[in-house]
Amino acid sequence: MPDFAAPLQRLIDEFRRLPGIGQKSAQRLAFHVLRASREHATGLAEALLDVKDNLGICAECNNINDAELCPYCRDPNRDRASICVVEEPHNILPIETTRSFEGLYHVLHGSISPLRGIGPEQLKIKGLLDRIAKGGVTEIILATNPTVEGEATAVYLSRLLRPLGVKTTRIAMGIPVGSDLEFADEVTMMKSLENRREM
Amino acid sequence: MPDFAAPLQRLIDEFRRLPGIGQKSAQRLAFHVLRASREHATGLAEALLDVKDNLGICAECNNINDAELCPYCRDPNRDRASICVVEEPHNILPIETTRSFEGLYHVLHGSISPLRGIGPEQLKIKGLLDRIAKGGVTEIILATNPTVEGEATAVYLSRLLRPLGVKTTRIAMGIPVGSDLEFADEVTMMKSLENRREM
Repeated sequence: MPDFAAPLQRLIDEFRRLPGIGQKSAQRLAFHVLRASREHATGLAEALLDVKDNLGICAECNNINDAELCPYCRDPNRDRASICVVEEPHNILPIETTRSFEGLYHVLHGSISPLRGIGPEQLKIKGLLDRIAKGGVTEIILATNPTVEGEATAVYLSRLLRPLGVKTTRIAMGIPVGSDLEFADEVTMMKSLENRREM
Repeated sequence: MPDFAAPLQRLIDEFRRLPGIGQKSAQRLAFHVLRASREHATGLAEALLDVKDNLGICAECNNINDAELCPYCRDPNRDRASICVVEEPHNILPIETTRSFEGLYHVLHGSISPLRGIGPEQLKIKGLLDRIAKGGVTEIILATNPTVEGEATAVYLSRLLRPLGVKTTRIAMGIPVGSDLEFADEVTMMKSLENRREM
């Protein structure tokens, strides 16, 4: 039986708690830290604490941020008429990398999930309504995840926003580009047919 | 362009410095830390520093350890007549998991590599000679890696140990169990033929 010194075992255990890190990866990472410079280990340790100590959320869109407003809300070149609603701060990244959206974001910090006891009142929806009430917003793009919870959240929000007279859209679900129909699951295939467009 | 808050970007950068962690994994890990409890982030941070502060090497075999002697050297049930020589502390693990070696270890903390300017004098070889000099050792198993450097180290050690009258063996190189000859590289196949055994 492998028998690690206590501090090493502890570091392995801590690495294992991270997502996607199994026993072997955790051991590899821990042994890397052992061999690496002290400065490297300290750097990671400090960065971990720094993130917990010095990050808050944007007063406007709830994106994770270290100032009052996040870079998107601060940027005068962004189109303030469209707001893209996402579940979590990290959902902004895949949208930004497309470089095809020039508007602002709104982070809900969750999705409606009756199974986990999360209702609309636990999501940051009020701030979105406040932003719309201030005027100037012409479109809300619902970019919650294509899951049961994300879909439920999108349906809830679309109903909530309808009386406000602001256009509400939902990102398209379908077969991923470059993939093969053969590998599409039933529901995605169905969505893909439903969302078909004239050519 | 994705634009992360400074503390978040810093954590992503620190994660990226770990082996096998690319940009996407680093982002995933950093966002996980953001969402995770403060206690989780602190635990990992402390474990990182603890490993650097409280681990030393075993006075006998140079294995990584938090006491004077490592668990193997302390264990009265281990066979003190055979010593398995490895390059790094983490090389002990795959040997221990076989549960087929009951002896002790000796960690060299490196291998001879003229290209990187590492000669035998930089390896912890003297301690091995001291252990042999104390008597009672009947076999030295050279389990350095099957690489140019590991092989050079094994050859060097076998020559050094020959005059001491202690049996010196080298772990076998060959086709991995469960694999297919088709996928074996030329050198492995050659080693496998060289090391063939009568049935």
